[in-house]
Amino acid sequence: LDGKNDMILLTRKADFSAAHFYWNPTWSEEENVKVFGKCANRQGHGHNYTLEVTVAGEIDVVTGFVVDLKLLKDILEREVVSVYDHRHLNYEVPEFAEGTGMVPTTENIAVAIWRRLAGKIPGAKLHRVRVYEMPDLFADFYGEGA
Amino acid sequence: LDGKNDMILLTRKADFSAAHFYWNPTWSEEENVKVFGKCANRQGHGHNYTLEVTVAGEIDVVTGFVVDLKLLKDILEREVVSVYDHRHLNYEVPEFAEGTGMVPTTENIAVAIWRRLAGKIPGAKLHRVRVYEMPDLFADFYGEGA
Amino acid sequence: LDGKNDMILLTRKADFSAAHFYWNPTWSEEENVKVFGKCANRQGHGHNYTLEVTVAGEIDVVTGFVVDLKLLKDILEREVVSVYDHRHLNYEVPEFAEGTGMVPTTENIAVAIWRRLAGKIPGAKLHRVRVYEMPDLFADFYGEGA
Amino acid sequence: LDGKNDMILLTRKADFSAAHFYWNPTWSEEENVKVFGKCANRQGHGHNYTLEVTVAGEIDVVTGFVVDLKLLKDILEREVVSVYDHRHLNYEVPEFAEGTGMVPTTENIAVAIWRRLAGKIPGAKLHRVRVYEMPDLFADFYGEGA
Amino acid sequence: LDGKNDMILLTRKADFSAAHFYWNPTWSEEENVKVFGKCANRQGHGHNYTLEVTVAGEIDVVTGFVVDLKLLKDILEREVVSVYDHRHLNYEVPEFAEGTGMVPTTENIAVAIWRRLAGKIPGAKLHRVRVYEMPDLFADFYGEGA
Amino acid sequence: LDGKNDMILLTRKADFSAAHFYWNPTWSEEENVKVFGKCANRQGHGHNYTLEVTVAGEIDVVTGFVVDLKLLKDILEREVVSVYDHRHLNYEVPEFAEGTGMVPTTENIAVAIWRRLAGKIPGAKLHRVRVYEMPDLFADFYGEGA
Repeated sequence: LDGKNDMILLTRKADFSAAHFYWNPTWSEEENVKVFGKCANRQGHGHNYTLEVTVAGEIDVVTGFVVDLKLLKDILEREVVSVYDHRHLNYEVPEFAEGTGMVPTTENIAVAIWRRLAGKIPGAKLHRVRVYEMPDLFADFYGEGA
Repeated sequence: LDGKNDMILLTRKADFSAAHFYWNPTWSEEENVKVFGKCANRQGHGHNYTLEVTVAGEIDVVTGFVVDLKLLKDILEREVVSVYDHRHLNYEVPEFAEGTGMVPTTENIAVAIWRRLAGKIPGAKLHRVRVYEMPDLFADFYGEGA
Repeated sequence: LDGKNDMILLTRKADFSAAHFYWNPTWSEEENVKVFGKCANRQGHGHNYTLEVTVAGEIDVVTGFVVDLKLLKDILEREVVSVYDHRHLNYEVPEFAEGTGMVPTTENIAVAIWRRLAGKIPGAKLHRVRVYEMPDLFADFYGEGA
Repeated sequence: LDGKNDMILLTRKADFSAAHFYWNPTWSEEENVKVFGKCANRQGHGHNYTLEVTVAGEIDVVTGFVVDLKLLKDILEREVVSVYDHRHLNYEVPEFAEGTGMVPTTENIAVAIWRRLAGKIPGAKLHRVRVYEMPDLFADFYGEGA
Repeated sequence: LDGKNDMILLTRKADFSAAHFYWNPTWSEEENVKVFGKCANRQGHGHNYTLEVTVAGEIDVVTGFVVDLKLLKDILEREVVSVYDHRHLNYEVPEFAEGTGMVPTTENIAVAIWRRLAGKIPGAKLHRVRVYEMPDLFADFYGEGA
Repeated sequence: LDGKNDMILLTRKADFSAAHFYWNPTWSEEENVKVFGKCANRQGHGHNYTLEVTVAGEIDVVTGFVVDLKLLKDILEREVVSVYDHRHLNYEVPEFAEGTGMVPTTENIAVAIWRRLAGKIPGAKLHRVRVYEMPDLFADFYGEGA
């Protein structure tokens, strides 16, 4: 707009369906159930997760874009959806695998997705990763040091 | 209304989060992947399912109810949600267990929930069971012989 | 389409915010609370109701309309929204007033709105009235004798 | 389920974004504005349309499917979305082109999509086409002779 | 994640249905209607309110939680939902009672809920209270001095 | 609340339906399609846009309002909706007209709406303009120098 580049935020959503459970192998079954409740069922249960990725940047005065939308969609697909969708997070996604001690809570999933995306979006800054586990529960992460 | 009992439909929603996968044990891995795609991953994935249960009946002229809402909610909780929520449908729900040959598709889940609820709702007729696996995919079942 | 008039259903939504409570004056307080639970609080509580009105008719081959949308909107506004919106159903809407014995349940509201609209929509047939009291609870009425 | 094939309905949604306007070339500008209001602006405006396609059929006892979901998605993409999405309905979609006299109302779009899909879904019967123009306005078509 | 505690935001929703009206007892009826419009109807009307409570904190490296979700849900239930749900805000909720001069607007409800929750959530900081009166109207409060 | 004016944010939504396309007249058709994809179709396509306008201010201790809601609604209607709704952004909205070089992307629409509203809301500060082009894509603008 009239030669002045304005900082703006652009958000794109993506979905993935995954299974997970919460379990601390150093605890007894009782302790796990006490802390994690129904989520401690090791057969796993699952969710339709919704991911909102927000990038910040200046509007390109020629294209009107902060970021190429097709490119952003491809990055989300390659870095996150292809890895998480129709997967069991505890067994098939490396950051939550046995021995990592990482429980796939909504909070940890948001941080893990941030790390998968940080530095991968050309020309814009990753601003926020929001993950909905259910429509009534979500986590927001603004990055290390934020 | 003025002594005339009118047939009306009442619908109540409930949610459950569950894991599942699609697999025919008499087929090869290749055959399963060809038919079921990503859903054939035997580690399982999951969904936030939404259930809509519709009952039909006359309005009680004293209470204005087709069915006692608290009772209906309790029945859905006892017969469906407590059995399906935070469970792995293939391993923990009897109607989809190994050996039944029942694949936990949205269609089969709708039929199974119908069977769990039919005849359990006092004073009203079960009219329709709708199950959403995702916001963009759902199945409706109107009962045997419908 | 090519001179053949096809039966089609058209649905329009409208919203209204109202207060209500459930109470049978011939019962004791205990009886009312037992049957109606929290809804028996005579100070009233309230909801954002959503109304879906479905009309059935043939498509006018010249306009492509079953019904003039602006006219339908005006009818809903005049017959329902202007009467129910920002009102206390038990005190201000005649069909639920003291002495009628009509409890303003979702079921009875659907029937009452049907009666307000029946015969008022030129050139189309009222097919269904759906009323949502909450996103997870709704009633459908298809008319007397349906 | 136990060898008995049950009739069930399966619904899948799809989206398309399109421009349109309402105009009868045999009328004056005044007449068009009187009947079609803001929609008579011939520069066009647009919507995010949501399409719900419902098919009816028996559940395949081996797969648990009424219809192969991937195939259904491909059919919707090929027959409807690829033709309507990011298009101007009045100029680029044959059934609404100048000279057809077909106004691209929600009702007519539902009928047109029915005709595009009828007979194209192997093993299941097209049951209903629902088109949302806005979240508060939609049309349902059940087919010729329905 | 790798021993570094990251600040993250977690949001949980809750719902309550309540009646209210807007009225300043030191004004005439005309003045009240001029300022508050339809909301000045002292019979009251009502809404399905949605509450979003956001807490900020570090992720516990053992549990993966910012806050125990069951505990958070119990706090929202005890401090807010049990007090506001199925109540008339003007008559039954102390902070809006006659003589306080507090009008139960969306803005004031957000502040009141902040005060009910501040300091009650162990191990995390209350970050934001959002209250939706309708899907198209909401207020955000970030605390005194924010 | 008790004489202390608290800063709060109030958000109101509004909708408009518009047509648009993306095109740089100094580029070849190939270049436009390469950068803008399906959006480069000069017949135009369209969307149901959702606008969220957030204002910040102190709560008036007498009315409980940050801003008069009726007034805010009128301003959104006059400054934005009446200009954008049922319009073709490229042909009928001055800030995107031919020769401006302004492509009507979600980002640029958010900035343009900010400029239409800044300084027009008495007693409150414009805080954020959010524009949804689709439910899964939106832009946020916090103003020049933000």
